[in-house]
Amino acid sequence: MGMDIDTFVARSLGKWRSQRSAHHLAFAHFEEIRSMIEIEGLAKDDPSVLALCKSQGIDISAIATPFKMSWEGETDWNEDDVLKGQTILVPVPHVGDNSGENNSGKLLRDQGYAETIPAAGDYTITSDGTFVLTTGYDRAAAEEKIWFASDNLRFRVSLIKTSDGKGVTTSSLSSEVRILPKSE
Amino acid sequence: MGMDIDTFVARSLGKWRSQRSAHHLAFAHFEEIRSMIEIEGLAKDDPSVLALCKSQGIDISAIATPFKMSWEGETDWNEDDVLKGQTILVPVPHVGDNSGENNSGKLLRDQGYAETIPAAGDYTITSDGTFVLTTGYDRAAAEEKIWFASDNLRFRVSLIKTSDGKGVTTSSLSSEVRILPKSE
Repeated sequence: MGMDIDTFVARSLGKWRSQRSAHHLAFAHFEEIRSMIEIEGLAKDDPSVLALCKSQGIDISAIATPFKMSWEGETDWNEDDVLKGQTILVPVPHVGDNSGENNSGKLLRDQGYAETIPAAGDYTITSDGTFVLTTGYDRAAAEEKIWFASDNLRFRVSLIKTSDGKGVTTSSLSSEVRILPKSE
Repeated sequence: MGMDIDTFVARSLGKWRSQRSAHHLAFAHFEEIRSMIEIEGLAKDDPSVLALCKSQGIDISAIATPFKMSWEGETDWNEDDVLKGQTILVPVPHVGDNSGENNSGKLLRDQGYAETIPAAGDYTITSDGTFVLTTGYDRAAAEEKIWFASDNLRFRVSLIKTSDGKGVTTSSLSSEVRILPKSE
């Protein structure tokens, strides 16, 4: 019952109200972040997708559904901070994956969470439908697990690790509730 | 590379400083809980273990390492509340489990988290070493995932569900750091 990446992306589309708690472990600090997240599908030949693939040397025929994630929110860590941004994400499934269902591959993004340079992570979708993404940056590494509790509720656990992967500096849980379009 | 339940229990023993965030989803409320958790191994013939097995009709020869979990902490939800309690837990591995490593079974406990009657949950340890526990109560169901990032750091994600298993009322993340014994 593995889920392929196109199905995972399709289930993720829409507007989500996110409630996120981060634990800064060294000083046992709690941070609360509230945000709205929008995830939109993109055409494979969207100029931003073509540019990202070109910068990473990926042939367009190798990609699955690309998508754009935008967010806007606020944190109680610094009340003057407005968190706002967007990133383009392009999955590149491994060819000849055991399941034949594109359950693992690379995920290209034009901005990382922890740094602001283009990055590529490695994803796997486990047999219980959890999307696991690991991304290495210059000075840190990130591990994310995302899974659906129902069509309109998903959870995301993120760990920010030291670049050697041994220590965890920050952990967080996001509870994301889909904002349903109003019926007219 | 599955982990057996005795190994999981052995890795869990000790004192842990827990930082827990709960999301009460219906009203997007954040709750912060700080606590100390102590997990101690028990002898299989400890009177409390014998009593629990008897109450659930389990033969003592069928059990793996029993343990006691005690906690004491405080929440910002109600500042007068002191959270304090303890529970006895007894794993009963399934016989003839595929892996031959006792990777799934029942977990008896003399108190549940969501209600205060004896309860039995079902556990599985996944191939990546995540302990997954589901427990049904009269009016709710709980799903917990616990995994180790390193010897002295573990994470626990809990979902409290409606009894039909369809809705989630509360999600939480605990980051648990082991308090190392002082060297003398």
